[in-house]
Amino acid sequence: MSSIADAVRLGPGPVDLAAIDTDAAPGYDGDKVSGAADLEAMRDELAELQERLFAEGKTGGRRSVLLVLQGMDTSGKGGTLRHTVGLFDPQGVRITSFKAPTEEERSHDFLWRVERALPEPGYVGVFDRSHYEDVLIARVRELAPADEIERRYDAIVDFEQRLVDGGTTVVKCMLHVSAAEQRKRLLARLGDPTKFWKFNPGDIDERAYWAAYQQAYEVALERTGQAAPWHVIPADKKWFRNLAVGTLLLEALRGLDPQWPAADFDVAEQRARLEDEAPPR
Amino acid sequence: MSSIADAVRLGPGPVDLAAIDTDAAPGYDGDKVSGAADLEAMRDELAELQERLFAEGKTGGRRSVLLVLQGMDTSGKGGTLRHTVGLFDPQGVRITSFKAPTEEERSHDFLWRVERALPEPGYVGVFDRSHYEDVLIARVRELAPADEIERRYDAIVDFEQRLVDGGTTVVKCMLHVSAAEQRKRLLARLGDPTKFWKFNPGDIDERAYWAAYQQAYEVALERTGQAAPWHVIPADKKWFRNLAVGTLLLEALRGLDPQWPAADFDVAEQRARLEDEAPPR
Repeated sequence: MSSIADAVRLGPGPVDLAAIDTDAAPGYDGDKVSGAADLEAMRDELAELQERLFAEGKTGGRRSVLLVLQGMDTSGKGGTLRHTVGLFDPQGVRITSFKAPTEEERSHDFLWRVERALPEPGYVGVFDRSHYEDVLIARVRELAPADEIERRYDAIVDFEQRLVDGGTTVVKCMLHVSAAEQRKRLLARLGDPTKFWKFNPGDIDERAYWAAYQQAYEVALERTGQAAPWHVIPADKKWFRNLAVGTLLLEALRGLDPQWPAADFDVAEQRARLEDEAPPR
Repeated sequence: MSSIADAVRLGPGPVDLAAIDTDAAPGYDGDKVSGAADLEAMRDELAELQERLFAEGKTGGRRSVLLVLQGMDTSGKGGTLRHTVGLFDPQGVRITSFKAPTEEERSHDFLWRVERALPEPGYVGVFDRSHYEDVLIARVRELAPADEIERRYDAIVDFEQRLVDGGTTVVKCMLHVSAAEQRKRLLARLGDPTKFWKFNPGDIDERAYWAAYQQAYEVALERTGQAAPWHVIPADKKWFRNLAVGTLLLEALRGLDPQWPAADFDVAEQRARLEDEAPPR
């Protein structure tokens, strides 16, 4: 399964998104049925590793995991939350959905609101969109001056290096869909009254900037991989997207290899206290 | 299934917790196996109602659900989060675990930190412990003057009435275990190295105050049911606890009966835009 992780991980150097097939299942031999089964098969190990990490965090540990989900509209961030992040115990997960910044948020540095949403020790934090919007839509739609955008790439690397140094494993995923697949998914939303709420006419406006967005992603992916690598996950196949993100989370947790904390009390003494106790009435 | 809800809901008047059997399954005829199956059978309806509420919240709706979980140590708040709250799409859930207040929190009114944790429109918020600690442990361990504790009961009712008036359905559950069951669960933690981290010698100290805690619960349950009723859920049987909380959440969502939002755009026009578009390259 870790061959998926290797296959989707970006190394250093230029990125050509057009050369990465959005409909592929790199590093995986199976199909939709086996993909769903293989994801389900991760459930118990994911849950146990997550609980160990949570236990570690409750007993003085400082480590955590942060999943960063980026992708064009309809690329499946919500579906990934449901199907993959949904495998975890919700008690140990903290999801933050980043929208257009509020006035207060805009009055601060772009990393201010991100800093406040970082996972506590022991938690799996999930960013549904992230600080990367500040070099993606901000670049494409010129929401900040060019020199400010330039500054942000290095600021992001420094920020993520600090997270990593502080014990956070940062797992960055770009869900990669094609313009044709997005069109299909937007049409599906328009064909289903239970999905109208997910549609915004502005989503079609943004398609006029498709090439600019792809380029902005390429620049961001190239310039921000130093502290934590990027993964480009072909996302036309929803089952592969779910499986790939699950695989990366499993790999991250296995890498941390959290252990059940030892007792910081005398177990026999505490047992004796309970056994000798006059029962409360 | 709604007979469970009726059976665990408190009406007005004095509360005698000793008279409520912690090992019962009120309003339910089945056993552990059917209880787990009946909970699982709620999954699809819970998920759809939750998504409708979420959709409503994304399109201008103001309604939300807030589940308040209270109970003695080992009563199963964590298990309820995992097994019942875990049925929801994590995207629409916001869990807050309230610990002993920080210095900053103590410098404000006791409801300050609670206010900041309220669910946004469309969300299911979950409080793992809550503002009720401020009339439970605070009363038993005299963490605040008696007249301040007195003041808090009415303040809580006013606060919850404001939530309800603002569109939040508040579902309050006390997970009710016996002292004997708690002893068994604490001994189980001491007998399993994967559970040592959940144990704290202070948990045994608190058992000396068991009767005082039960009394503090009785006073709280009696005095704070006006805006949102309390439910006392027998929690010695974990499967019943999970099923009962699931039933209450399902009932709350059915009561809201959220509808898929209508399109606030011309569907045909948007379809035509996509169909006529020069595809992005």
